[in-house]
Amino acid sequence: MKAEKSLYRYRIEPHEVDFTLRATIPALGSVVLNTAGTDAHGKGFGVDALNAGNHSWVLSRIAFEFDRRPKQYDEYTVATWISDYGRVLSTRNFTLSDSSGSEFGRAVSQWAMIDLASRTAVDLSWVGDAHADAIVDAEPPAEKPRKIRAVTPSERCEHRVVYSDIDFNRHVNTMRYIEMMLDMLPLERLTCEAPVRMDIHFMKECRYGQTLAVGAEFRDDEALFEIVNDEGAAAVRAAIGWK
Amino acid sequence: MKAEKSLYRYRIEPHEVDFTLRATIPALGSVVLNTAGTDAHGKGFGVDALNAGNHSWVLSRIAFEFDRRPKQYDEYTVATWISDYGRVLSTRNFTLSDSSGSEFGRAVSQWAMIDLASRTAVDLSWVGDAHADAIVDAEPPAEKPRKIRAVTPSERCEHRVVYSDIDFNRHVNTMRYIEMMLDMLPLERLTCEAPVRMDIHFMKECRYGQTLAVGAEFRDDEALFEIVNDEGAAAVRAAIGWK
Repeated sequence: MKAEKSLYRYRIEPHEVDFTLRATIPALGSVVLNTAGTDAHGKGFGVDALNAGNHSWVLSRIAFEFDRRPKQYDEYTVATWISDYGRVLSTRNFTLSDSSGSEFGRAVSQWAMIDLASRTAVDLSWVGDAHADAIVDAEPPAEKPRKIRAVTPSERCEHRVVYSDIDFNRHVNTMRYIEMMLDMLPLERLTCEAPVRMDIHFMKECRYGQTLAVGAEFRDDEALFEIVNDEGAAAVRAAIGWK
Repeated sequence: MKAEKSLYRYRIEPHEVDFTLRATIPALGSVVLNTAGTDAHGKGFGVDALNAGNHSWVLSRIAFEFDRRPKQYDEYTVATWISDYGRVLSTRNFTLSDSSGSEFGRAVSQWAMIDLASRTAVDLSWVGDAHADAIVDAEPPAEKPRKIRAVTPSERCEHRVVYSDIDFNRHVNTMRYIEMMLDMLPLERLTCEAPVRMDIHFMKECRYGQTLAVGAEFRDDEALFEIVNDEGAAAVRAAIGWK
């Protein structure tokens, strides 16, 4: 049997909008990531099932594109599917469509599976075999997440990792990284209606109690970010660009 | 026709749990507040309807009680009802019950209606008349939120208000206040399984760009908090206690 894209229906709730009454980028990003979790759980290869075997999914890179931000109480559908399992990374894709079926956003994410004891990546070949029937024969809807090389910050701020930043793995949750970076942008950028693309690259896990340095480099229609941990190592890099 | 409590069903999702795999207090608090918004919207007196008349609901005080924190993927039901409209405050109540019907949490919230132009409280008598059929003849499930008087902080931290802290009114959103305060507690407290009650009293709205001072006073089985704005005025006070 050929696998199909899975569809999840949502509505933009009041706590997800900013003062433009449109969904924020972190709110849309959060729905995308939670949809990944829900879909994997429903199909039996979620974090909970993997943890039993002492494995977990770790997000390595993700790219989001939002052509517009839907309004409060707008209904929309997220379609998600896995397009391939490589040796190290699996690719999960998303499209977001409004109630008339018009696509307004998409995301491509790449996940590694780690062994929780050694915290090293596991060869995914066996997963590709075991879950071959979960692969959908449809290309990613956007360019795969780009690798972000050097960032030369002109502004920096500090962030001490607290309880509300961390997830069930005791690491900073993905949405908090995104918020830390976006919070360095001027409000006009965050609330503008131009189509936006964000590429994020996760390199090291940040932990409770660490003090992170969040740096930003501003260009014309782009901003680059780098989050450095208290040992001076780059933990997250990201780029956001507007059309 | 007599009004009935409204019921909303939810499931604890992975992004709502901490490393104990139980829902965090902010996650449960967030569901309670979002349920208030959904219920008011559905009944035609939500913030969106009020804004059209240049009014809005503002949360004045809330008390939460959680006897235990449900586990990831547990299903539960939130019941909500308005028990009275005073001249200044209306009371909205909540109970949280697991799938076997056993109540594990409750909340009592008091809301003022403000005129968005003058930002002053509106006399609610007319609302009580217009929406008398929305009042449910059932007492609040817990003691109403307590007023918190003087707090003498032994620890303080600063918080600059950023984009991801603010809501559609450009004010710090309720859950962020709660997170700022709880983040000052040791992890063992936050993740313990003792029944907890939290009373929060909102006095002033905090805005984008302000720098807040969050102070905490620790007692045996209780902690008090005070958030002071950059003009030195107390904006939020709270108390949290464990049994």
